[in-house]
Amino acid sequence: MPLGTPTPEDRNFMREAHAQALASYEAGGVPVGAVMVENGAIIGRGHNRRVQDSNPVSHGETDCMKNAGRRPNYSGVTMYTTLSPCMMCTGTILQFGIPRVVIGEAKNFAGNIEFLSERGVEVVLMHDDDCIELMSRFIEERPDLWYEDIAGNE
Amino acid sequence: MPLGTPTPEDRNFMREAHAQALASYEAGGVPVGAVMVENGAIIGRGHNRRVQDSNPVSHGETDCMKNAGRRPNYSGVTMYTTLSPCMMCTGTILQFGIPRVVIGEAKNFAGNIEFLSERGVEVVLMHDDDCIELMSRFIEERPDLWYEDIAGNE
Repeated sequence: MPLGTPTPEDRNFMREAHAQALASYEAGGVPVGAVMVENGAIIGRGHNRRVQDSNPVSHGETDCMKNAGRRPNYSGVTMYTTLSPCMMCTGTILQFGIPRVVIGEAKNFAGNIEFLSERGVEVVLMHDDDCIELMSRFIEERPDLWYEDIAGNE
Repeated sequence: MPLGTPTPEDRNFMREAHAQALASYEAGGVPVGAVMVENGAIIGRGHNRRVQDSNPVSHGETDCMKNAGRRPNYSGVTMYTTLSPCMMCTGTILQFGIPRVVIGEAKNFAGNIEFLSERGVEVVLMHDDDCIELMSRFIEERPDLWYEDIAGNE
């Protein structure tokens, strides 16, 4: 599936994901945030909690999935994430059949956009300046923590 | 990488993963369990907690990862799981660079053995009767919960 184009609504929801990332940064954590949207409403928010909860599998997307709770399906859901998804989060999106993913940026971490797209997920890449700036600042300040979070698998 | 053969140690650790699965079954949850082993010792145990914690991303493998806590790397780790890993857990294994996965069974759910193997993970499939029996019983008793957990992506 070819990459999509962000709508004005996408830009608004990315601000909410960025707010999640910023909250994590301010708490000393990894600044990746996510929100999930269905029918124009946010059904879950989350951010990386590796530091906050000592939990390596709590990335922005998985924390958001946890906070959205149990659901019968995800066929109408869009996942917004400030950073291109790692392989764990890519697998999560595919396993639960989330059909659309809006990504803040892929400059600091390429992630798995092509893999998602090949498997039928509509991917929108925003190249969002605020997301790029926050993640760049974090990687410069805390390369140790970034390397640990991504387990060296860039 | 070709499929590996289980060692006597693998068979012992699979009993621990099965005990986790059974504990989840007895609590009314999805009976998939996992343990992680390094240098011959268990460093984490876990099981699916969809029901127990209302958390859809808490599968056996991810709960085990959470319980093992923060680690600099996983280069000496083996993941034991009673059921062949779904795409989320497959992505988790790949993202964190876990080099070896021992799987109880793939009869009730095929999972992603070939994908793991293609990406360089040593996979051992045990065809364990106890794992097959427990999962079969659960799927027969709770098809609704099984379908929800796997989000229809069998």
